[in-house]
Amino acid sequence: MAMTGVLRPGHVQLRVLDLEEGVSFYRDVVGLKETGRDAQGRVYFKAWDERDHNSLVLREADEAGIDFLGFKALDAATMDQLESAVQAFGISTTRMPAGEMLGTGERVRFTIPTGHLIELYAEKQDVGNGQSYVNPDPWVPDVKGIAPVRFDHCLLYGPDIEGVEKLFTEVLGFSVTERVLMEDGETTLALFMNCSPKAHDIAFVRHPEPGKLHHVSFLLESWEQVLRAADIMSMNRVSIDIGPTRHGITRGATIYAFDCSGNRFETFCGGYQTYPDNQPITWTWDEVGAAIFYHDRKLNERFLSVVT
Amino acid sequence: MAMTGVLRPGHVQLRVLDLEEGVSFYRDVVGLKETGRDAQGRVYFKAWDERDHNSLVLREADEAGIDFLGFKALDAATMDQLESAVQAFGISTTRMPAGEMLGTGERVRFTIPTGHLIELYAEKQDVGNGQSYVNPDPWVPDVKGIAPVRFDHCLLYGPDIEGVEKLFTEVLGFSVTERVLMEDGETTLALFMNCSPKAHDIAFVRHPEPGKLHHVSFLLESWEQVLRAADIMSMNRVSIDIGPTRHGITRGATIYAFDCSGNRFETFCGGYQTYPDNQPITWTWDEVGAAIFYHDRKLNERFLSVVT
Amino acid sequence: MAMTGVLRPGHVQLRVLDLEEGVSFYRDVVGLKETGRDAQGRVYFKAWDERDHNSLVLREADEAGIDFLGFKALDAATMDQLESAVQAFGISTTRMPAGEMLGTGERVRFTIPTGHLIELYAEKQDVGNGQSYVNPDPWVPDVKGIAPVRFDHCLLYGPDIEGVEKLFTEVLGFSVTERVLMEDGETTLALFMNCSPKAHDIAFVRHPEPGKLHHVSFLLESWEQVLRAADIMSMNRVSIDIGPTRHGITRGATIYAFDCSGNRFETFCGGYQTYPDNQPITWTWDEVGAAIFYHDRKLNERFLSVVT
Amino acid sequence: MAMTGVLRPGHVQLRVLDLEEGVSFYRDVVGLKETGRDAQGRVYFKAWDERDHNSLVLREADEAGIDFLGFKALDAATMDQLESAVQAFGISTTRMPAGEMLGTGERVRFTIPTGHLIELYAEKQDVGNGQSYVNPDPWVPDVKGIAPVRFDHCLLYGPDIEGVEKLFTEVLGFSVTERVLMEDGETTLALFMNCSPKAHDIAFVRHPEPGKLHHVSFLLESWEQVLRAADIMSMNRVSIDIGPTRHGITRGATIYAFDCSGNRFETFCGGYQTYPDNQPITWTWDEVGAAIFYHDRKLNERFLSVVT
Repeated sequence: MAMTGVLRPGHVQLRVLDLEEGVSFYRDVVGLKETGRDAQGRVYFKAWDERDHNSLVLREADEAGIDFLGFKALDAATMDQLESAVQAFGISTTRMPAGEMLGTGERVRFTIPTGHLIELYAEKQDVGNGQSYVNPDPWVPDVKGIAPVRFDHCLLYGPDIEGVEKLFTEVLGFSVTERVLMEDGETTLALFMNCSPKAHDIAFVRHPEPGKLHHVSFLLESWEQVLRAADIMSMNRVSIDIGPTRHGITRGATIYAFDCSGNRFETFCGGYQTYPDNQPITWTWDEVGAAIFYHDRKLNERFLSVVT
Repeated sequence: MAMTGVLRPGHVQLRVLDLEEGVSFYRDVVGLKETGRDAQGRVYFKAWDERDHNSLVLREADEAGIDFLGFKALDAATMDQLESAVQAFGISTTRMPAGEMLGTGERVRFTIPTGHLIELYAEKQDVGNGQSYVNPDPWVPDVKGIAPVRFDHCLLYGPDIEGVEKLFTEVLGFSVTERVLMEDGETTLALFMNCSPKAHDIAFVRHPEPGKLHHVSFLLESWEQVLRAADIMSMNRVSIDIGPTRHGITRGATIYAFDCSGNRFETFCGGYQTYPDNQPITWTWDEVGAAIFYHDRKLNERFLSVVT
Repeated sequence: MAMTGVLRPGHVQLRVLDLEEGVSFYRDVVGLKETGRDAQGRVYFKAWDERDHNSLVLREADEAGIDFLGFKALDAATMDQLESAVQAFGISTTRMPAGEMLGTGERVRFTIPTGHLIELYAEKQDVGNGQSYVNPDPWVPDVKGIAPVRFDHCLLYGPDIEGVEKLFTEVLGFSVTERVLMEDGETTLALFMNCSPKAHDIAFVRHPEPGKLHHVSFLLESWEQVLRAADIMSMNRVSIDIGPTRHGITRGATIYAFDCSGNRFETFCGGYQTYPDNQPITWTWDEVGAAIFYHDRKLNERFLSVVT
Repeated sequence: MAMTGVLRPGHVQLRVLDLEEGVSFYRDVVGLKETGRDAQGRVYFKAWDERDHNSLVLREADEAGIDFLGFKALDAATMDQLESAVQAFGISTTRMPAGEMLGTGERVRFTIPTGHLIELYAEKQDVGNGQSYVNPDPWVPDVKGIAPVRFDHCLLYGPDIEGVEKLFTEVLGFSVTERVLMEDGETTLALFMNCSPKAHDIAFVRHPEPGKLHHVSFLLESWEQVLRAADIMSMNRVSIDIGPTRHGITRGATIYAFDCSGNRFETFCGGYQTYPDNQPITWTWDEVGAAIFYHDRKLNERFLSVVT
């Protein structure tokens, strides 16, 4: 959690082209738990080891992509303070009423310089992780599919990386952990920031079109689980973009793949711990290949061009 | 990091009976990097992936144990605020001048209700992790021994667990993550707290004698590294207390062993992520065995009685 | 497979005190597949990745232990030749008719010098591993419990180790891979032999009482699966004898535990490859602790005394 | 080992364009142990856990590729018998004198229908694996680079797959474990055979040009070691062909990469156990992608076209 009281990325709403196909995919292949459906027809999911009611919401639409990404704040007072700070930064905010999302309190939302809709919320119903709060076992045996432990982060594509860097570091209390520079050796191509000791809680890549999604990411507990995830993807004919491989950036061991609507998602493990006193890491243009795909040391075309 | 600006456990000073034997042990078997020796004869170490100058300091003495445990604060102003808050809590503080520890700025120190000497500091020299800040590789090949990535936490034994819980949660900004109850179902036997999403950054067990050390803990990156650590311990005739095994508490996969002076240390991996909004986990007296040693489901006598 | 045509340990029949309790244990906790029940009331199991009809048979009896261990021979002619050789060695044989065990052809059986009943058979019905023989996936998702890939070997206790060494190496074509010596530096305490490049396919420990079982062993694919096995044992309140740990002998990474009738079983991974041209490894009496439990470097009392 | 007494693939001689560059590569990056140089200028290597004097020999030449692949036979009599059988099959043989290769006895050599030179030998000096034969540790700490445990197998490209299948199964005692069919559903494109319970000891792919090498393969002990291998390749700018990934065929988890002369090599772990009584697995033409690269489910162009 950041010292501002931003705890973590808590929920993301994705658009899928066919709702039931999307539900099957995220429930049976990714292995999330379905936790509810609302009057708008949206379907709610959580990873098994999350305790909050939902972390992924699917909405049927004509075009894939991301509707919004929400960060949980420590409490309502923190959410109010953060809203004021966002407004003082020059970004207008709106409020979504409690209950508009299942199990979720009031939300503050605003559009950031890359064109993405970001939310803050302080309340989400604790539905537990399938274990008791008294004498729990370390994991639950009744999972399906890949079964990540948590929704972890998003990588978003859009213009004005400088604007989001300023907003997230100066207003929301994030720290820059890694940065990829463009050919000029100065301009930021990609920016990784955290609000915790994780190597990243959110990342951005410069892109002309605003509001685009590169991937949503789910956390696995080991490299063996990454292999198992790749096997499950193959068994289910999921289109793998790349992996298993390692990122130079964050050191994460990873797979990128596409859901049934073309949204890219990641299942990964690893990464280092870093704190606000640590100097960020810089990747230069000539090493951008190793930065993104450490083993191949070269980008595939899809990484920079295919987004939803 | 806690919202108060306490970042992490950053250094611990241990007493060893024979300095050079201790140096050999922590350098060649545990696999820490020696980073310096001071005029008092103390020897400084860091884990390979830490960037700060030191995290473990050895001092030769007639009796093993812990001299002090230090937490890094975000900056000098944060350290000042935390000092004031500790004083307001009713605990007096003293200052150690910058440079009294190699590579380390001024430190605030105070004795907590369990009798342990705790420090806060804001400055420690960045000596790097053996990789560049530009285009780094994910790890360094020239390590020796077990080679943990970080010093992670301590488990301390002493009286007045209620006092340290109040101090760490109300003044220093920690959260309780897990708690073991005594036979009466009310009194806390053991307390696990974090100042980050880690399952614990510090832990205490109720014990009549103040200021005792149960173990210092070092972080490994995988369960395979835990096996490798156990193998290296056996090759070097290190006395293993227990493990490889899993803790019910924190879910960590672990080995406890004793250094050449009888100080217990842990090499572990794993554990879940938790945040201040998560309800703590409680372990009842009848399940204390599973809480501590999840596989055996019973304590060994040494766990509660052997401390330094 | 040995050059004599002995392929592998293929089936073992165990006695359990309560049949349905035993069935639940091996099906739901160990995670074997039940493949049939016969007119005698015996219940048949196979590990998921085995293709033959059965590898474990349970029989209800007043006393736990092993009834017999069977090795598969290449074909009927090989079985005949091996039978003749056993007889020429001075051991009488009998034949069990095809079908006396479900899915199994005629068996040759004989009592070896340690008092155990050993069988040879050449036919067992191929029931598959749940995957097609055409374009299979690497594993099947619908497993329960620990779910080892194979029945691997047995460790048997009895007198006259010299006799079984002679029989297995000279008649059946096994090779000695490792040997533990007694205090006199000459007498064999424990003997490990293979009929394949595995570190062992059968092992014996010297023991006054004939025909005893130390453990039956099931193969896992990784050290992470060993941790998962230990977790599942704890969740099901299985009594763990020792582990997760490593054997010095064979290098296997292992857990020993007891089934609901007190029969010890092992779930393990690893071990090296060795061939008939390799010199055997010897363990001396003073290092027997490290030989058996490499991390602790000392035996627990149970290892030598508790058998069924 | 096959019932004919063929034990295992024991040595392979490769051509490299620059000897010292090749030596550095296989010693420092692959992590083999250099065991000698002979009067012809050839350099000998073994993997750390092999006990025989050599398993890889490098020879400087103008063109990369394989000179010969040798299988160890149980003893001289076995080698003689196998030679007679090869001759009876219609293939002429020659003998290389003892000592022509360092530490190696007399060798029988012959050219197989795919145009490769194959050898049989019965004697190679036991130089140990860096551990004692008495009370050994499970591994040695002083390794460099990737450090596989063994040379495992080769995949060879050439015409007349039918001829090698007949030779290896009928004369040398190998078993077919897996087979990939061509578009006609009948002709064998690729053939995997073993002389042990390993999923393969040698493999062939149909190719118009005789005597070509697809890859030499080295065995690692875990999927984590595969990741570490890929990291080391990237650190050393080794050109990775594909991986980490999994093969559908053999289930192996793998990386293909190129040595400094363009010879492809593999570092892999895993695979199942199979015996001569097991029915082979068949892959059809439409699933050849999944057969080779299970995660991507499609071949890269290099797999079929780039050989040395």
